[in-house]
Amino acid sequence: MKERGTADVEVHPAVEETAHQIAEMEVRGAAKIAETAASALKQQAEASTATTAETFEQEMRLAARVLLDTRPTAVSLPNSLRYIFRRIDGESVDELRESVITGTRAFQNQLASAQEELGGIGANRLQDGDTVLFHCHSTDVLSCVAAAREQGKSIRAIVKETRPRNQGYITARELRELDVPVTLIVDGAAGRYLEEADHVFVGADSVTADGAVVNKIGTRPLAVSARERDTPVVVAAQTVKLDPTTLSGHAVEIEMREESEVIAADDREDIGDIAVENPAFDVTPPRYVDAIVTERGQFPPESIVFLMRELFGTQSDQPWEQQE
Amino acid sequence: MKERGTADVEVHPAVEETAHQIAEMEVRGAAKIAETAASALKQQAEASTATTAETFEQEMRLAARVLLDTRPTAVSLPNSLRYIFRRIDGESVDELRESVITGTRAFQNQLASAQEELGGIGANRLQDGDTVLFHCHSTDVLSCVAAAREQGKSIRAIVKETRPRNQGYITARELRELDVPVTLIVDGAAGRYLEEADHVFVGADSVTADGAVVNKIGTRPLAVSARERDTPVVVAAQTVKLDPTTLSGHAVEIEMREESEVIAADDREDIGDIAVENPAFDVTPPRYVDAIVTERGQFPPESIVFLMRELFGTQSDQPWEQQE
Amino acid sequence: MKERGTADVEVHPAVEETAHQIAEMEVRGAAKIAETAASALKQQAEASTATTAETFEQEMRLAARVLLDTRPTAVSLPNSLRYIFRRIDGESVDELRESVITGTRAFQNQLASAQEELGGIGANRLQDGDTVLFHCHSTDVLSCVAAAREQGKSIRAIVKETRPRNQGYITARELRELDVPVTLIVDGAAGRYLEEADHVFVGADSVTADGAVVNKIGTRPLAVSARERDTPVVVAAQTVKLDPTTLSGHAVEIEMREESEVIAADDREDIGDIAVENPAFDVTPPRYVDAIVTERGQFPPESIVFLMRELFGTQSDQPWEQQE
Amino acid sequence: MKERGTADVEVHPAVEETAHQIAEMEVRGAAKIAETAASALKQQAEASTATTAETFEQEMRLAARVLLDTRPTAVSLPNSLRYIFRRIDGESVDELRESVITGTRAFQNQLASAQEELGGIGANRLQDGDTVLFHCHSTDVLSCVAAAREQGKSIRAIVKETRPRNQGYITARELRELDVPVTLIVDGAAGRYLEEADHVFVGADSVTADGAVVNKIGTRPLAVSARERDTPVVVAAQTVKLDPTTLSGHAVEIEMREESEVIAADDREDIGDIAVENPAFDVTPPRYVDAIVTERGQFPPESIVFLMRELFGTQSDQPWEQQE
Amino acid sequence: MKERGTADVEVHPAVEETAHQIAEMEVRGAAKIAETAASALKQQAEASTATTAETFEQEMRLAARVLLDTRPTAVSLPNSLRYIFRRIDGESVDELRESVITGTRAFQNQLASAQEELGGIGANRLQDGDTVLFHCHSTDVLSCVAAAREQGKSIRAIVKETRPRNQGYITARELRELDVPVTLIVDGAAGRYLEEADHVFVGADSVTADGAVVNKIGTRPLAVSARERDTPVVVAAQTVKLDPTTLSGHAVEIEMREESEVIAADDREDIGDIAVENPAFDVTPPRYVDAIVTERGQFPPESIVFLMRELFGTQSDQPWEQQE
Amino acid sequence: MKERGTADVEVHPAVEETAHQIAEMEVRGAAKIAETAASALKQQAEASTATTAETFEQEMRLAARVLLDTRPTAVSLPNSLRYIFRRIDGESVDELRESVITGTRAFQNQLASAQEELGGIGANRLQDGDTVLFHCHSTDVLSCVAAAREQGKSIRAIVKETRPRNQGYITARELRELDVPVTLIVDGAAGRYLEEADHVFVGADSVTADGAVVNKIGTRPLAVSARERDTPVVVAAQTVKLDPTTLSGHAVEIEMREESEVIAADDREDIGDIAVENPAFDVTPPRYVDAIVTERGQFPPESIVFLMRELFGTQSDQPWEQQE
Repeated sequence: MKERGTADVEVHPAVEETAHQIAEMEVRGAAKIAETAASALKQQAEASTATTAETFEQEMRLAARVLLDTRPTAVSLPNSLRYIFRRIDGESVDELRESVITGTRAFQNQLASAQEELGGIGANRLQDGDTVLFHCHSTDVLSCVAAAREQGKSIRAIVKETRPRNQGYITARELRELDVPVTLIVDGAAGRYLEEADHVFVGADSVTADGAVVNKIGTRPLAVSARERDTPVVVAAQTVKLDPTTLSGHAVEIEMREESEVIAADDREDIGDIAVENPAFDVTPPRYVDAIVTERGQFPPESIVFLMRELFGTQSDQPWEQQE
Repeated sequence: MKERGTADVEVHPAVEETAHQIAEMEVRGAAKIAETAASALKQQAEASTATTAETFEQEMRLAARVLLDTRPTAVSLPNSLRYIFRRIDGESVDELRESVITGTRAFQNQLASAQEELGGIGANRLQDGDTVLFHCHSTDVLSCVAAAREQGKSIRAIVKETRPRNQGYITARELRELDVPVTLIVDGAAGRYLEEADHVFVGADSVTADGAVVNKIGTRPLAVSARERDTPVVVAAQTVKLDPTTLSGHAVEIEMREESEVIAADDREDIGDIAVENPAFDVTPPRYVDAIVTERGQFPPESIVFLMRELFGTQSDQPWEQQE
Repeated sequence: MKERGTADVEVHPAVEETAHQIAEMEVRGAAKIAETAASALKQQAEASTATTAETFEQEMRLAARVLLDTRPTAVSLPNSLRYIFRRIDGESVDELRESVITGTRAFQNQLASAQEELGGIGANRLQDGDTVLFHCHSTDVLSCVAAAREQGKSIRAIVKETRPRNQGYITARELRELDVPVTLIVDGAAGRYLEEADHVFVGADSVTADGAVVNKIGTRPLAVSARERDTPVVVAAQTVKLDPTTLSGHAVEIEMREESEVIAADDREDIGDIAVENPAFDVTPPRYVDAIVTERGQFPPESIVFLMRELFGTQSDQPWEQQE
Repeated sequence: MKERGTADVEVHPAVEETAHQIAEMEVRGAAKIAETAASALKQQAEASTATTAETFEQEMRLAARVLLDTRPTAVSLPNSLRYIFRRIDGESVDELRESVITGTRAFQNQLASAQEELGGIGANRLQDGDTVLFHCHSTDVLSCVAAAREQGKSIRAIVKETRPRNQGYITARELRELDVPVTLIVDGAAGRYLEEADHVFVGADSVTADGAVVNKIGTRPLAVSARERDTPVVVAAQTVKLDPTTLSGHAVEIEMREESEVIAADDREDIGDIAVENPAFDVTPPRYVDAIVTERGQFPPESIVFLMRELFGTQSDQPWEQQE
Repeated sequence: MKERGTADVEVHPAVEETAHQIAEMEVRGAAKIAETAASALKQQAEASTATTAETFEQEMRLAARVLLDTRPTAVSLPNSLRYIFRRIDGESVDELRESVITGTRAFQNQLASAQEELGGIGANRLQDGDTVLFHCHSTDVLSCVAAAREQGKSIRAIVKETRPRNQGYITARELRELDVPVTLIVDGAAGRYLEEADHVFVGADSVTADGAVVNKIGTRPLAVSARERDTPVVVAAQTVKLDPTTLSGHAVEIEMREESEVIAADDREDIGDIAVENPAFDVTPPRYVDAIVTERGQFPPESIVFLMRELFGTQSDQPWEQQE
Repeated sequence: MKERGTADVEVHPAVEETAHQIAEMEVRGAAKIAETAASALKQQAEASTATTAETFEQEMRLAARVLLDTRPTAVSLPNSLRYIFRRIDGESVDELRESVITGTRAFQNQLASAQEELGGIGANRLQDGDTVLFHCHSTDVLSCVAAAREQGKSIRAIVKETRPRNQGYITARELRELDVPVTLIVDGAAGRYLEEADHVFVGADSVTADGAVVNKIGTRPLAVSARERDTPVVVAAQTVKLDPTTLSGHAVEIEMREESEVIAADDREDIGDIAVENPAFDVTPPRYVDAIVTERGQFPPESIVFLMRELFGTQSDQPWEQQE
């Protein structure tokens, strides 16, 4: 694969390999994808035989585009590249290479510690003896509970099963490992159990520039009911979940999943000729969210756009596109 | 079984038998229980060998108490007895007996036609081409759809599966029999599909004097989200569902059901030591309900207390208690 | 015109004449229609040559149906007939005739004094020095202001012009005749002027059993904005505006009017190929209305259904249908 | 004192005496005033030497007007008279006298048992272990707690001091006598303690036809905050507190009390030239109240107007005015 | 015109001329005013004969003040000057001049492309087949539709006529040129048509530091009603519409326009002695706005203050005032 | 006191003395504490005999920690230190010392003018003739009124007494000195007087990163009621009140004060065995606040986190901790 209009720029095999792994979903999870992509970019820089700064930059842009093409909707992938490109600086190939390596390390260090730092911040919102209501499964959310437990706080959990894939089971199991007493409920019972909850904690698949939170289907009605009862809703999301493309207003595409997740084929046949819809996510407007907890601190959802710009630049920055 | 302080009053075997069937849940469903209890009361009256009006009335009160003792929380059971007792009138045994028989027939006639009449009224709220979102399963609700179909209206259905017992499947099947296209969703997806719905239709287990609707768990969050989107919420409930005991402020007891409904034993063991809660119902305040459709017409939930009083009297009326 | 299956029952020419006038809209306005229909029914009764009670009743039913067929959507027409039929009582033709005449007089007396009584009640909500915001034109609303003026209260008016037909001009003129200072504004400015208003007063075309108010387009957004500012919204509506057919859930049909009311033909041609829609009314849910003022007193909208039933019976009463 | 245009009708000295006591506030409290007025009316009837039904009725009307003139704004005074007048019935003086005596007894019996019955109903809303937040002092409210205690329920109390007269102290003392643990807070802290409260219980000075509750200043902000947190607000009010004059839209006049209740003269002098306002009551709209508990059962505030009409008639009934 | 206390500093005739044109409203429209003012400043810099940096800076400040004096309330005028002054940098006259020229060009480039970039971002919020409700006329809003059309999306428009000046007609005509089907409605019908709308798009006259949107009268009630129905409200506004003076809390002055816009003189005379008010704008609080779309991306209204500070500095920066 | 692991670093006596005064609350008030701490830090720098940059920095960190240990919950104390540490810069001891002195001066200058600048900004929100409702006592709030008075605006004040300590009296007195007419009310009457208020102005004890305002108990219910009536709520708070520790999610600890503030010992004894709670503050969520006015301008509460970061850095910056 070559950069447009340039005969002799090639991507490193490690980039090709990483792109393949991401495309085939061998590498999954927002943080993992970000980490792997950053690593590939570093390898490209380290192995570069470019003799001019211009050629080196062409290589980097090409590598970025190869990686980006694999899963255009993954939020953390462009974020990792944006983070590094914003730190590329220098006159010579050596200086440029060095800045890529330094930038990558900074990004990887941040990533490595992000979940733990986020957990410590989220834990600070919890008090000894609190009851927390959970939806779906999020390692960021669990990191908050783990940190609270380490601080010696006793926490009680109410876990929604989160149909159709029952990710609540995973949350329940991991909470038990943290020695947290767990009450499992069906999704429809959440309204009733909000009475007992001091907090709602959910993760996010992505957070948009207008402060909305994209997360597992069922988050929005939970947040609306929680506001009605004045129970604070906390979203735990590492900054790689922030989606700078939404700065330019792009609507979030909601994935529709297999109907077999919702109903077994037999049951369905038995019922007759029906359609089954299975949207994976919903979008919660910022007015139903009290705080977004990231490794950089907690923020009201309405202000997160400025953290987005600070870390990843604005959407009009497309540093992997050639600018003449 | 004898009336307190009266040596020679006995209940008819049909009453004993009916009481047994209701207690053992051989007779189930609000309407069925009401119908059977009324019938037993009538048999008591017909078979009475009382020679004085006083004795006859003692017999009736005794029979009522025997029936009531079987399932103290069933709403329709006292309603049937209250309806008939309010119509007992006369000086002689013959006049009294006649009034019981007439009252029973009036009640049974009303019951027989109630669902169909209610259906016709609910159907009038639907317009050709409307999309309706359903929660759980209610024959009252389906009667509305059936009537709308008979009026030639085309209806589209979105059906929540209604965990943990998936009564949405029954609703889906019966809607298909009415030739209504059905989209089945998980409970958490309801917020998303409210966008497409012109109405939410739910049934009720009971309606309280302060206008609240007791129904299958998950109704309240659905109604809260529907209000947020300005989608009207209609409750279809025959008048036997109105609960006059709540006139005297009695809190509604919410049944907790088997945890095996929520999670299979194996799965649970696998997760570890967790509690599972499975409340069967929730309570929706009147401010989230647009109309209650009964066979007597549709009413704002805040006014239903007066229909309750009109049909079944006030709570301080305990006609089966001896008043000296 | 003859009663179904009865050879010799005929309607009185006064009934035919009245039906014609209503159909041709020579008789207009809720109160006027009600008054005229009642009068025709009385003439039918007075002129009856029926020799049996049964024949007399057939005549009355036939007359009612002839009148009703003229404008099926007029609310006050069936109300006048329901009011009288509920008071028909007697064994002989003479007794029946007398009861029709008495019932008609009672209805007409009520009608004659209704607007004035309503005005007195509405005026009691106003205090000396209050500012009132008005939408469209309603004689019931103006009756409230007239009564307040007679009580010596000084009132200031803000009047929405009420596009497209500018009925606000009529309201403005009649308020000036009451010596009320008037400020006229465009419809879009109402939000701004709510700040200065102590009350919003609007009339109603009809009030439904679920407490919703059908009124001139623009009422609902005004009421929503007024609630946001905590300005009370008062609906002035004589009881003939209550619509008992909505007890059975019938959706209100909103009339679409001429597009020439909205835009002159020239202007439209000039713009190009556009559609123009001109709905005459909108429906305000009861939660945005503070009180409905009638000649029977003021009521929260959620309770008006019981006034409806008290005055006009329930929808299942169709006294003009033959009941065997 | 004589009836207009009738030379020989006189009020009984007991009526004059009672009128004096009410006017001088020797007789105070809604229930006490109602009871005394009814008693005076009965004495008038018993002592009557009227020889014609007409004269007897003139006497009754005159007595009523004498009583009513004493405190035109007391709600329970006209209610007691309306209750009795609605039951006056008969052709002869003896029959009429008997009906007054019977009606008075019925009213007095109801009054005697009202608070206890109301208490039983309100208690049914409370569950063992509940925490209740109280504002001001109301014997109706305390009757609910007493009944709950008799039912063996353990209740925890949070009591607002209720400036400026600190009626919370009385409530606190009486709750302690019921063995209820009490936490006293300043009024501004109520928002914070709503978190811990399962219910808010307040009394009422009067309830209006549009469902609004007039009560001690500070009730409305408490109710607004309680709605924001979804804590149910219960108003305990005997039916003599229902104000039928508001059916005709009369605005409620809010009494302004002595400024010395708010600030000591010395403190005020020290501050300088300030105004002090001390309104005694505020008006809570029905949308912030969950239920009104009366001795007749509990009602949504929006429906209370029909209980008002059932017990005391409509405002247009002024039975003490002569109708020729 | 001379700088205070400096004898020999003069403004360039181009500045005087531009000031005159702005004052006389020969130059109108936020973008046009900004562009022309920037251009004048550049000409002042180019023509400067200043021999010291200090003199040059005095000239620039004087020119800025001359321009600012013309229309103190125009938002875009100080924004253009602030933008450029923030980029003035240098030791020598030549360096300073160069920085003015560069800053001006940057500002003009941004301005030239702003509307198109904003359009692209706003268009991304729209989906193929969406219905959009429009109020008044805004070229920023139309740029969003144009971009959506270029992306091949089919859009349906509902256009409020926007009394009193009917700017909806202009919007309708321009939408037709983009081949968008248009339905025109009166302002009062907007509540009804929100049901069919997927988005509300409005422009802005200015946006304040507390996130409020100043726009054509009628925007606020539309936004309130849209929130009640959960229809997102999008404000399209170039960054020159952001008003940094509101950082210092200055209340927005709402212009009152000619009453002849509201009612023809004849009609008014006909009605009688009334006042007519015609406020041009209203202020929508941020809680009713979902996103502000600018050429820099979309932002929640609550965060726009930081974009304001980034681009134009804070209000305490008054770079045209002499600072010693 | 020595820096950990360094034998020869000592704090200056002025630092010890200041620490003592703050700990003993001889120095009180957010601004005074900040000013004094900054001054101590400057004296440490000026008196330093350090010979290496490293030693100097150790001294500064040690001094900071000594000061911080005195009152861990005072918001302004770490803010003053953070402000200065962010400006420490240099290679040599002399350069470092100079930067501390300059940074301290900048901080002190800002502090000296902050309240006045804030006042000018807040005053701009007020219009001549406005009525403002005040809670508790805040010099920041009074500075707004003072500035408005200097601008010649006439202001009318409604002052809540603010139980239990009646700080409203202080506010009332100081407003009188500004020649502002004052109406004093009890706390419970605020709901009623919001009708007359154009603004609510309150101060803050601290503002958290999620936009919540910690202030004297009673602020939250006031703000909730004000939103319900659409009265804007303005918080006046210097930037030293912003609490960057909340960036890391730390819950705000609410101080419980002496119960003797609430009730006199005698009164309490008289009532019986009750608890008294006296929380000093409450927390108002950002959705009930319209603007926070600081000396840097006014901000929506949701965006204040970025002002916090701009001025004081993020919480992860703990510049007084040794970083190797």
